[in-house]
Amino acid sequence: MTLRIGVVGTGQMGRYHVERLAGGVSDAEVVAVSDVYVEGAKQVAEQVGARAYADGHELVADDQVEAVLIASPGFTHEEFTLACLAADKPVLCEKPLAPAIDACLRVLEAEAAKPRRLVQVGFMRRYDDGFRALKAAADAGRVGRPLLLHCRHRNADVPSGFTSDMMITDSVVHDIDVTRWLLGQEVLAATVYKARRSSLAPEGLADPQMVLLETSEGVLVDVESFVNCQFGYDIRYELVGETGTLSLGETAGVQARQEGRWSGPIPADYRERFGDAYQAELCEWVNGVLRGEVTGPSAWDGYATTAVAEAAVQSQTKGDRVAVELVDRPALYG
Amino acid sequence: MTLRIGVVGTGQMGRYHVERLAGGVSDAEVVAVSDVYVEGAKQVAEQVGARAYADGHELVADDQVEAVLIASPGFTHEEFTLACLAADKPVLCEKPLAPAIDACLRVLEAEAAKPRRLVQVGFMRRYDDGFRALKAAADAGRVGRPLLLHCRHRNADVPSGFTSDMMITDSVVHDIDVTRWLLGQEVLAATVYKARRSSLAPEGLADPQMVLLETSEGVLVDVESFVNCQFGYDIRYELVGETGTLSLGETAGVQARQEGRWSGPIPADYRERFGDAYQAELCEWVNGVLRGEVTGPSAWDGYATTAVAEAAVQSQTKGDRVAVELVDRPALYG
Amino acid sequence: MTLRIGVVGTGQMGRYHVERLAGGVSDAEVVAVSDVYVEGAKQVAEQVGARAYADGHELVADDQVEAVLIASPGFTHEEFTLACLAADKPVLCEKPLAPAIDACLRVLEAEAAKPRRLVQVGFMRRYDDGFRALKAAADAGRVGRPLLLHCRHRNADVPSGFTSDMMITDSVVHDIDVTRWLLGQEVLAATVYKARRSSLAPEGLADPQMVLLETSEGVLVDVESFVNCQFGYDIRYELVGETGTLSLGETAGVQARQEGRWSGPIPADYRERFGDAYQAELCEWVNGVLRGEVTGPSAWDGYATTAVAEAAVQSQTKGDRVAVELVDRPALYG
Amino acid sequence: MTLRIGVVGTGQMGRYHVERLAGGVSDAEVVAVSDVYVEGAKQVAEQVGARAYADGHELVADDQVEAVLIASPGFTHEEFTLACLAADKPVLCEKPLAPAIDACLRVLEAEAAKPRRLVQVGFMRRYDDGFRALKAAADAGRVGRPLLLHCRHRNADVPSGFTSDMMITDSVVHDIDVTRWLLGQEVLAATVYKARRSSLAPEGLADPQMVLLETSEGVLVDVESFVNCQFGYDIRYELVGETGTLSLGETAGVQARQEGRWSGPIPADYRERFGDAYQAELCEWVNGVLRGEVTGPSAWDGYATTAVAEAAVQSQTKGDRVAVELVDRPALYG
Repeated sequence: MTLRIGVVGTGQMGRYHVERLAGGVSDAEVVAVSDVYVEGAKQVAEQVGARAYADGHELVADDQVEAVLIASPGFTHEEFTLACLAADKPVLCEKPLAPAIDACLRVLEAEAAKPRRLVQVGFMRRYDDGFRALKAAADAGRVGRPLLLHCRHRNADVPSGFTSDMMITDSVVHDIDVTRWLLGQEVLAATVYKARRSSLAPEGLADPQMVLLETSEGVLVDVESFVNCQFGYDIRYELVGETGTLSLGETAGVQARQEGRWSGPIPADYRERFGDAYQAELCEWVNGVLRGEVTGPSAWDGYATTAVAEAAVQSQTKGDRVAVELVDRPALYG
Repeated sequence: MTLRIGVVGTGQMGRYHVERLAGGVSDAEVVAVSDVYVEGAKQVAEQVGARAYADGHELVADDQVEAVLIASPGFTHEEFTLACLAADKPVLCEKPLAPAIDACLRVLEAEAAKPRRLVQVGFMRRYDDGFRALKAAADAGRVGRPLLLHCRHRNADVPSGFTSDMMITDSVVHDIDVTRWLLGQEVLAATVYKARRSSLAPEGLADPQMVLLETSEGVLVDVESFVNCQFGYDIRYELVGETGTLSLGETAGVQARQEGRWSGPIPADYRERFGDAYQAELCEWVNGVLRGEVTGPSAWDGYATTAVAEAAVQSQTKGDRVAVELVDRPALYG
Repeated sequence: MTLRIGVVGTGQMGRYHVERLAGGVSDAEVVAVSDVYVEGAKQVAEQVGARAYADGHELVADDQVEAVLIASPGFTHEEFTLACLAADKPVLCEKPLAPAIDACLRVLEAEAAKPRRLVQVGFMRRYDDGFRALKAAADAGRVGRPLLLHCRHRNADVPSGFTSDMMITDSVVHDIDVTRWLLGQEVLAATVYKARRSSLAPEGLADPQMVLLETSEGVLVDVESFVNCQFGYDIRYELVGETGTLSLGETAGVQARQEGRWSGPIPADYRERFGDAYQAELCEWVNGVLRGEVTGPSAWDGYATTAVAEAAVQSQTKGDRVAVELVDRPALYG
Repeated sequence: MTLRIGVVGTGQMGRYHVERLAGGVSDAEVVAVSDVYVEGAKQVAEQVGARAYADGHELVADDQVEAVLIASPGFTHEEFTLACLAADKPVLCEKPLAPAIDACLRVLEAEAAKPRRLVQVGFMRRYDDGFRALKAAADAGRVGRPLLLHCRHRNADVPSGFTSDMMITDSVVHDIDVTRWLLGQEVLAATVYKARRSSLAPEGLADPQMVLLETSEGVLVDVESFVNCQFGYDIRYELVGETGTLSLGETAGVQARQEGRWSGPIPADYRERFGDAYQAELCEWVNGVLRGEVTGPSAWDGYATTAVAEAAVQSQTKGDRVAVELVDRPALYG
């Protein structure tokens, strides 16, 4: 049994997914791709023997397409996700579900009216072996009730055009999702502190920042977001519980002893660090859809994460703590 | 394009491979399995929709079978590999190629008469990310010319019936293969030292042992083989070069701070440690065969490793250094 | 040449210093001790052949006493330090210089009127090999300009009677001192966040807390203060600079591989972690005084640290950011 | 109470000890030093206010000298130690006790005729916190009965004139001593393997080597001796027991994250690694002598270590296993 997939968007992220679907996911076939830059779509289509569309809506409407992966720019996520819902086709939407709360709520309402979930949001950390082991250890009560969570989220650098609010909406969203998933709690408030600015950050970018989140049960979460740290892609977590702490992020690999130092490698980027997680995300999504299930991060997760991110972006500007207000959770996401 | 594979042997290792081929390798299909215990073969066959044979030779002869994976007991490897060669079918033979040098030589001769390689031996460590990174760093000259190689090979425990010579032929063979592959040198001599015997080892088993290997360029290799170490599956390497050392084997995973200690996990067994390597081995073999190539560990590797292992087994009994004599390398393996 | 020292206070900390002075510091002799609980003073005095006083002022006035170490309760520090200044005797005062800003200022004024420094405050972390190496690496510019500083300050537990403000004044004061010394910057503001309360903390204690400090050049410092963490004495730092990070706090010691885990020890308490630093502090103080110099943490450091701590204690109550206002720095501390 | 010490030999090691005795050991005073190069002796004497002799025998005879530290070249250790015994003066003799077995035996006989021990040999690793913790953990049975011991002994480089046998007698002697002390067993045989020679080693030096030791209870010990490893002073141990392993040698210090790697420091030389151990050795020796006791490594330890080293040097030449024959242990060393 094979799932015939259409991929909307053939930029960097879209190509990355197409390669993985074609090369490493059993039971998946990419039958269509689309991009407003249709030449790019054609190029990718040729490599995997798929049809190319300029318009994602045509792709969604294609009878051969059984499920859709959305990897187009964030502001287009709403329309394509709604189109998939209208067509009753399962959809894996790259994060964010939508950049604005209103748009998220429209998707939420559309899906909540369905008898079962169709939408999954691409928070791939939940598929990483390390994050899963961290959650398993926490859930098993190995360090007692969680009290604090320290997160480090560092990128070597970012492309020009990256803005201070994108540090929240493109980067810290992952930490917001992990916080909610790992603790099983909603985030009620966000406060952003700007640290001394790195002179190596592009002009105008307030880099690094510290984001403080407060959860429904009082767990205090601090996220260091540093997107021009120069030295690598450094994702580290420490969960502090009542009887101990659990940490994630030390890397293994080949260690060297040279010139007075021992040393080990740090991943270069998210592909090196989370390649296996993306693979697992796609495999589990494909297998789930073939069984008629969608079990990954939900539209509710996408909505709640966007709501927290929006509060944090407000706090960036105002400098103050901003409370997060969530709508009632529809029964579908019980 | 899909490769139709027959699997000889449906014991623990055979089932492990069938599961991986069925679940995680694109472009592969298990169409036949065989086992002298035919009920076992039938059980596995049913799960994946394959035919079941009691006789591996019938499986090899099956027209639907394009390539063969041999996971039956070691003493049967020669006959099935020769049958595959006779039928011109690519074969992935679990280690050892054959337990005795004579048998290996017969396979070598049969394949050397062919225009291209058909045989691959299942030394899966060569497909492990860590071992590959170790070799890449060594080959890049990061620590200069290799001088020494320290290997630790520890299993929590072994099934009853495991003998002292199996510590060499079943376990240290992997280290012999890594030595040859990592250094690109043949092993010329082996000496085995028995350490103080663990009282937790089954009666009659001389556990642990130290195996010393000497390579063609004088690199000294020591392998600690300890198959009842109790605490986990612990595979560690340190390559000592002229300007530094390269180490492999520190594990990452979730670290804890509890009760006065920080700690991290050690893999439980080879499945946990080398699961990804087995997967990569199968994927690369399948993709290679579909392209008409066999690039993995060769029959020569299988022969040379068995020759070294045999010398080590002799040294176990005699207590002395035993030289390894290899035949000339056939042109096919140049 | 030997320095004759009087020790005020023979409680836990006082005895600890007397033992070190007697056993491990060349050129030092304890000639007098005092305590309001005079029996305790007598006991200690007998062990080292010193005189015992009930009144610390008599000790300061003793002609045989050339220098004074104050280890009595914090609220008495001011009067004994002022007495030493009046008597022109060098004094090593355990932290805090005084619990209140006013008291600190009185000491500052008294000493600022002297031709040279006589007062040193007992911030012993500055004498720790690790902290010194951290500062040396930072000062050498190994990671560029500092942007953020993450501090973990965890104790296994605290004696009953320990209060939420003591978490700042007794514990976080060390991190405040390290912040100022490591970065060479004053702290301008403090904000305290209370995390979810550990059910293992004594009733009424808001444990753990996060203290955020902002320095004169915008470096953002976060201190996790957790005084009932159960698992050990865990002091860790990470300085984030423009090109990398520097970390302190991984412990070495004997590592074990047992029962599926590798592990290493965490210090039990400050004595185990900072024993050598206390020793170095005393040695350098004694040698300095014998040369006529006082080079350690100054009364200004004591004052500024108390000022920041007081702001943090206010923030604990108010929940808001509290600015720190410092008087002008007297020329003596230029 | 102060111990008046004479130091024989004011070369590098002698000066190192004089500095430590003068600067960091309470209750010790250096009252005399000697060296055949009398100008060197005078220079050191002046710094600490001691008398200088050209002849060590005059120093031993000096009535002001209560105890003697011998740091002259190894071939002179016998005569000065015998002189101290004749004069009934406690002596701390740097390793080796003597380079030849005969000489060791003469010292052993002379001391065995005394009512109590006077001689201590300078195996300072026994005073290192790490080695002590390793022994404590092993003795407490944390990993069951010892089976194997892996030792790494690496120096960045050695002075010209260093020979292959000095790799045993000057360097591996420490590992021989640790083996005997840690396991509480004598060494019965030694075999030396020469590895591929580092092209960075001085001509004629067979560097690195592997020394295999077999103890009275069958524990197998392997020592990598590599004295031109370039990258630092790297001393590491792994004791393999029946239920786990204990390791020593991972260094803490400041860790950095820079340029795609995390890294930490390796000590530069024995001074950095074992400075505290030398200090503790001197302190405990001085305090013991003042109490009338000598409790450190004995003349028997010195003799047995030299006997093993001599066997290893023979094995270097012959290439074979060489048995170690020890005389009966005199009652004094029961």
